[in-house]
Amino acid sequence: MGLRLPSKEIFNERDGGLMRAAVGFGGCTAVFISADGLLATNYHCALGTIQAASSVKHDYLKRGVLALERSAELPATGPRSSVTVLRSSTDVSAAIKSAAAGAEDDRARYRAIAKAKRKLVAACEAEPGMRCRVAAFYGNSSYRLFRSLQLRDLRIVFAPPASVGDFGGEIDNWMWPRHTGDFALLRAYIGPDGKPAPRHADNVPYRPSHHLRVSPQGVAPGDFVAVMGYPGRTTRYLPAVEVRRNIEQVLPSQVGLYGRWLDLLSAQAKRSPQLALKVAALKKGVGNRHKNARGMLAGIARMKLLDRVVERDQKLAQWAATPDQKRYRGVLGDMAKLSKRRRAAFGRRFVLKAMMRGSMLLALAVDLQRNARDAKLPDLERQPTYMKRSQRKLWATQKRRLRDFDRELESKLLATLAEFAKTLDPPIAALAALSKTAGQNGLTLTEQLAEMLDASSALNDLHTAKRLLEQADSAALEALDLPLLNLASALATELERSNREREQIEGAAATLEPAYFAMLEAQHHGPMYPDANGTPRFSYATVQGYSPRDGLWATTQTTLSGQLAKHSGAPPFVLPAKLRQAASAASSSYWVDPLLGDVPVCFLSNADTTGGNSGSPVVDGQGRLVGLNFDRVWENIAGDFGYNPKLSRNISVDVRYLLWMLDRVYDAKPLLDELGVGAYRQAAARSKHDRAPRPPARNAVGCALSGLEAAPSCRLCWLLFALGLWVRRHATSPPRSAAQKG
Amino acid sequence: MGLRLPSKEIFNERDGGLMRAAVGFGGCTAVFISADGLLATNYHCALGTIQAASSVKHDYLKRGVLALERSAELPATGPRSSVTVLRSSTDVSAAIKSAAAGAEDDRARYRAIAKAKRKLVAACEAEPGMRCRVAAFYGNSSYRLFRSLQLRDLRIVFAPPASVGDFGGEIDNWMWPRHTGDFALLRAYIGPDGKPAPRHADNVPYRPSHHLRVSPQGVAPGDFVAVMGYPGRTTRYLPAVEVRRNIEQVLPSQVGLYGRWLDLLSAQAKRSPQLALKVAALKKGVGNRHKNARGMLAGIARMKLLDRVVERDQKLAQWAATPDQKRYRGVLGDMAKLSKRRRAAFGRRFVLKAMMRGSMLLALAVDLQRNARDAKLPDLERQPTYMKRSQRKLWATQKRRLRDFDRELESKLLATLAEFAKTLDPPIAALAALSKTAGQNGLTLTEQLAEMLDASSALNDLHTAKRLLEQADSAALEALDLPLLNLASALATELERSNREREQIEGAAATLEPAYFAMLEAQHHGPMYPDANGTPRFSYATVQGYSPRDGLWATTQTTLSGQLAKHSGAPPFVLPAKLRQAASAASSSYWVDPLLGDVPVCFLSNADTTGGNSGSPVVDGQGRLVGLNFDRVWENIAGDFGYNPKLSRNISVDVRYLLWMLDRVYDAKPLLDELGVGAYRQAAARSKHDRAPRPPARNAVGCALSGLEAAPSCRLCWLLFALGLWVRRHATSPPRSAAQKG
Repeated sequence: MGLRLPSKEIFNERDGGLMRAAVGFGGCTAVFISADGLLATNYHCALGTIQAASSVKHDYLKRGVLALERSAELPATGPRSSVTVLRSSTDVSAAIKSAAAGAEDDRARYRAIAKAKRKLVAACEAEPGMRCRVAAFYGNSSYRLFRSLQLRDLRIVFAPPASVGDFGGEIDNWMWPRHTGDFALLRAYIGPDGKPAPRHADNVPYRPSHHLRVSPQGVAPGDFVAVMGYPGRTTRYLPAVEVRRNIEQVLPSQVGLYGRWLDLLSAQAKRSPQLALKVAALKKGVGNRHKNARGMLAGIARMKLLDRVVERDQKLAQWAATPDQKRYRGVLGDMAKLSKRRRAAFGRRFVLKAMMRGSMLLALAVDLQRNARDAKLPDLERQPTYMKRSQRKLWATQKRRLRDFDRELESKLLATLAEFAKTLDPPIAALAALSKTAGQNGLTLTEQLAEMLDASSALNDLHTAKRLLEQADSAALEALDLPLLNLASALATELERSNREREQIEGAAATLEPAYFAMLEAQHHGPMYPDANGTPRFSYATVQGYSPRDGLWATTQTTLSGQLAKHSGAPPFVLPAKLRQAASAASSSYWVDPLLGDVPVCFLSNADTTGGNSGSPVVDGQGRLVGLNFDRVWENIAGDFGYNPKLSRNISVDVRYLLWMLDRVYDAKPLLDELGVGAYRQAAARSKHDRAPRPPARNAVGCALSGLEAAPSCRLCWLLFALGLWVRRHATSPPRSAAQKG
Repeated sequence: MGLRLPSKEIFNERDGGLMRAAVGFGGCTAVFISADGLLATNYHCALGTIQAASSVKHDYLKRGVLALERSAELPATGPRSSVTVLRSSTDVSAAIKSAAAGAEDDRARYRAIAKAKRKLVAACEAEPGMRCRVAAFYGNSSYRLFRSLQLRDLRIVFAPPASVGDFGGEIDNWMWPRHTGDFALLRAYIGPDGKPAPRHADNVPYRPSHHLRVSPQGVAPGDFVAVMGYPGRTTRYLPAVEVRRNIEQVLPSQVGLYGRWLDLLSAQAKRSPQLALKVAALKKGVGNRHKNARGMLAGIARMKLLDRVVERDQKLAQWAATPDQKRYRGVLGDMAKLSKRRRAAFGRRFVLKAMMRGSMLLALAVDLQRNARDAKLPDLERQPTYMKRSQRKLWATQKRRLRDFDRELESKLLATLAEFAKTLDPPIAALAALSKTAGQNGLTLTEQLAEMLDASSALNDLHTAKRLLEQADSAALEALDLPLLNLASALATELERSNREREQIEGAAATLEPAYFAMLEAQHHGPMYPDANGTPRFSYATVQGYSPRDGLWATTQTTLSGQLAKHSGAPPFVLPAKLRQAASAASSSYWVDPLLGDVPVCFLSNADTTGGNSGSPVVDGQGRLVGLNFDRVWENIAGDFGYNPKLSRNISVDVRYLLWMLDRVYDAKPLLDELGVGAYRQAAARSKHDRAPRPPARNAVGCALSGLEAAPSCRLCWLLFALGLWVRRHATSPPRSAAQKG
């Protein structure tokens, strides 16, 4: 297809291979692009971090960040302030299965598995600086332990203004044509002793074992590319009953609640610049979930997914009914019962989880209550959020909550949620009581909630909150007798109940799902790739457009001229004057695509991606960075339920747009030099006949990496390549977790 | 380019050529497609006619029309109930210019020209059955008299349900991708003596001198096509001051008023099925104008038209300032003064004209008053609408008005207009008085207008209206003392004033514009084509897509599958069950495009079209019908102001979609036989390798017409073709009026 690297260079267990350059970034992906720990990721992944560094006085959302000297880099705080570099992964299925073997019932099984996982993680994290997790594959059929180095001193090096990084905003989100400069650069630091350390002035740039070289020549339609990253979650193997539940229950609930919240957030953001800043990330998050759920419903309908899985399950049922397949006979029935239990449990859990997003102060109160209750348990039996290893993160969360608290907004968000909760059966008692008294005391539900927030303002204090969290004492919380803490206590009890219910369900799933997957596999032709689960994936692809509908073709690339044409002067389509000025002379720069005759901005490819792949490097056949994945197209939202060769397209921002900005808009010579492309600043634009010149190969290895079809003077490359092919053919197939494609 | 007919076969003064197959259809175009007077046009052109034939009981809008026998054809009444077949055109510039030569002032000049035109028309129409008109070219630089046979007995043969003929409705109007079955078939009848006659049972099908053969093979991307029709009006040569006036005054007024009317009409249409039927055509018309004006503004901005014409005018001014060009020195200044006068006169005239569309009963009253006043003048000095030759049409208009009258709707439309008129300076006294009293007598303006309509209900009677129209007596009208007639009298006076003002302006234009065009021509490279003016045009083109914006390509064709994918079950996206059923087996029919593998529905080409081209035949290089033009793309609305090779695309419905419907949905064998394609009903679908097979040529001429690249056995064709080429090369260039292209 155009991949010119042997698979072991991409990934191997010894040194990790190029995959090690791609790192986890709190639910996103980032990638090392220099020997000095420079990282590239999406603007929208770094948004919360940039927001946390901002104030009305220093509004980095508005003006962007550019640190040409290390001393000017901004410390990254906020939700994403560390990256995890994968060091190894080990199959731990045996340990976990043996722990689960003797369980008395479903819940005991769940808890045994959870405990076994925590033990493995704890042992793994005994090594300083390591973060570990156990991931389940094929619905609890097997488990692997992933061990990563956590780098906690991150600094912001470059971010464009939000008007570029989020150009097109909610309107263009999930859409093509796209013109978003969705990139940001960070740098990872480490202690002077080479050990991971929290932020400190003495820390030095981290020197990664692998980093990607940046390709100044980018990509063209038809080129091979691959996306390397940490996709979060797909559900490609759901039984029909679960697909139906998603269509009837999960997605409509999300569309309903998030739609209402989005209206509220949009209205509230107009109140003041301060509030607009506070709610920016929440609004973006809710907007994204809302559009996502709507698109899923539309996409599931478009691909007639339900019909297809119903048909598949009918065939499976017929097959299981044949005499030879006795052991599979009850599997589909069991899955249907499991789905019924999930259906019954969903609504309450959905509301309780949303509660934690709707009000910062209530969420803080709930965390205080639950942390205090869990503190009485041995560490390994606590909910992961309240374990000792999580306390630092737990406090960081509370600090953010206090910073973003807004009484009016939160009382309104909560009121909406309480209204929404009225439809639940059985109801959530504490919320039902609230809704009942509203109107009776002359106050609307919103006013009543606002009063409750006021009456509990003692919590709205960093010092108090920290003390209460550290105390972790239920009695002390009760003694305060704050209405919000009392509500939180009731909700914590509800959450515990919901958790127990979930543990029972998931404990049942732990035995039922492996049987289901075994049945699928027995009926499947060829190997089955695992669902995304936040562990690394290499998705090979081709740069190409698609037909969103009859009569239209989404062409492969967009351009700077197209971005300028979208500039209307009204948000979210406002480009900075500086950029527009630089754009007028863009055609003369090296970063211009010779076929387009313009600086490319975004491109499409058919990689298999999902949430978590945001910020993933897109590499060419030589493993060079050509773009950063940041979105999928509208017709591919439902791709989480199934890969569709005609419609599954991911959207990446072209690295040449980043390079052009650094060069022509920001004059950021030190960064371009660090990326090894400083010399191209003076180079003339390439002509059509000079599509892909490459810098001279420096040595045999560089040569092998830099393009096997290139210089005739470099015959050794061909030998190396042939050798690679031979090795590859005779090696065992790559580990399942490294291949994902429909 | 692919045209294989000698130009004289397309058009010649002797027998008219193929162009004679294309006929005028009341502001649309229609085309003869059989020897028995069968005509094809757009559904939206025939809509008013189908509506006029409909009742709630026989709702032809809902169920469509299909007459497999002549006796089942429906008489066409309503606004479009005749077609005009062009017989000849003559240059009459000399006669008109000599008439205008001695004029004392601008208004006298206008009237002299108008009178000369009417004289020419009257002389021309002395021949029974003829309709004639004089058209001005290049801004009154020259004049031609067009003499046409009027066929007044039209019958509806086939119309799909509105759900197909108007599929996509206002949402898809002006848009691509498009899936509208915008076609209808009519038949023209003539007296048994071969003379045009009004509808009569003894009439016989008209046998046209030319009709188009239908191509069952259609078109493919890259093919040559031409649009033959009667485009209404373009303004490609406006001075910058007039472009600015359109941007600042004309288009915003249209957007404002029509937008408000459209909201009203949409709301009112929900009141009852009867009213929905009544307002269907008005709503479609207003919606179309509204979208058109909005699109013009957007398109003018997109193509930076104002900047371009300002620059052009600056160059013209510099050139005119050189010593050699003294005679052009004052021209641009004169055009600016003319534009200023147009600006001053526009608002009042816009409101007065809109008045005649807003209320049927008021419009009738105004026509009664004006007809009575003009009756005192010699026929040749009357307004064209009130001349003797127009009386039949005038009464037909009133009949329609009485049929469509609705008190509630019209009082609301008028109230909106009166509100709108408040901004006029100077005001229209009669409307200003109305607005003033509103509120004072406890009635809103709408209620007041409704009362006025009630108090004048005596007019809402066919018998009375006819009597008053025929009486044509101002005193009799005054004696009735109906409030609506009194208002109409005041408005008639205002209209007369506005007409005088217009006569002065246009009288000035009659000398200024030829000077302006002479200046443009002196500075223009190569021949200048004339603006569209409702006279015939042959626009050559290529079937091709375009890029509506960066990152998207509008592909050339749409398909039946695409139409089905749009079917949502909610108007305007509802396809009849019968069609959907037939569609499931469509792929086996001959009408399938072998490259698309599907029945084609619409296609794009770069023909230069405008309003009036609706219903125009689209022909291939052999002059065979391959489609019917019915719209332009959104990015080409402003094309009236300038042709843009990148964006000027017209939309046609593929004749194969019509044929497929007649065959597979309606089983309309007699019609397919009449079109000469009945034999294809049994033919197998073509394969990709068999792109354009043609029926066997019957004789040498048929052979020459049926495809020169075809049968090797038909060598004579090549000789004929070579001869044709030779003749064409040595012939003089085609007359200006036959070529239109930017």
